[in-house]
Amino acid sequence: MSFYDKLKFDANGLIPAIIQEAKSGRVLMLAWMNRASLEKTIATGKSLESTIKTGKTHFWSRSRQKFWMKGESSGHTQTVKDVAFDCDGDTVLIQVEQVGAACHEGYQSCFFRSIQDGGTNFKITEAQLETPEQIYGKK
Amino acid sequence: MSFYDKLKFDANGLIPAIIQEAKSGRVLMLAWMNRASLEKTIATGKSLESTIKTGKTHFWSRSRQKFWMKGESSGHTQTVKDVAFDCDGDTVLIQVEQVGAACHEGYQSCFFRSIQDGGTNFKITEAQLETPEQIYGKK
Repeated sequence: MSFYDKLKFDANGLIPAIIQEAKSGRVLMLAWMNRASLEKTIATGKSLESTIKTGKTHFWSRSRQKFWMKGESSGHTQTVKDVAFDCDGDTVLIQVEQVGAACHEGYQSCFFRSIQDGGTNFKITEAQLETPEQIYGKK
Repeated sequence: MSFYDKLKFDANGLIPAIIQEAKSGRVLMLAWMNRASLEKTIATGKSLESTIKTGKTHFWSRSRQKFWMKGESSGHTQTVKDVAFDCDGDTVLIQVEQVGAACHEGYQSCFFRSIQDGGTNFKITEAQLETPEQIYGKK
């Protein structure tokens, strides 16, 4: 049975994808995939067309309504190491090798802030590796 | 500024919460929270009422339309160690100490299956710690 048959895409045809750095275990980001972006993300497979064997993560942007490859403008691509899916089939967990900062704000992880004082405050928990200007250039 | 002001709940008032085991880094599950379940999940805080200081994860079940505490029937609770949120404010990442199996199917993680052969097949990647009957009793 194909694993696609185990998946439940939502009413918009999307499924959340948790992206985790394979070596460190750091959770880098969560983004949304449609079936096309998931197929394009998967690296190898006899039954898949060679044109979709990229091995890099691809997503669907809900805000821009646009297909995108992680790193297409920043160069901070993610090479896929493993694709797991959960018991309910409504989330995927992808292990990657991350080039540079995963976060568009220049942090290794998008989850660079943690709450303090029961939610009344928060703190930044990791160093900023680059500024957005260094990643994307001045706008 | 409260971290709640940084969060974007979706049209249904929900936000996805990634649950990660603090010690091992294993991603255990993804579930959805509304503001009430997030408040109830947060352990300490001077400005929060003492009645909501549980320090255990609480969620909103979309399928059952019901507030629930993880472990309420299985005993497999999650004690919160850290609550992080992402750059876009639309996902939270919660570090926990997990009692027993996180998955209702008896696996440590709900992500106990990974794809093989480019998505045409999949395999189970971890041992089943308990059967559902052992966790919940015979139905």
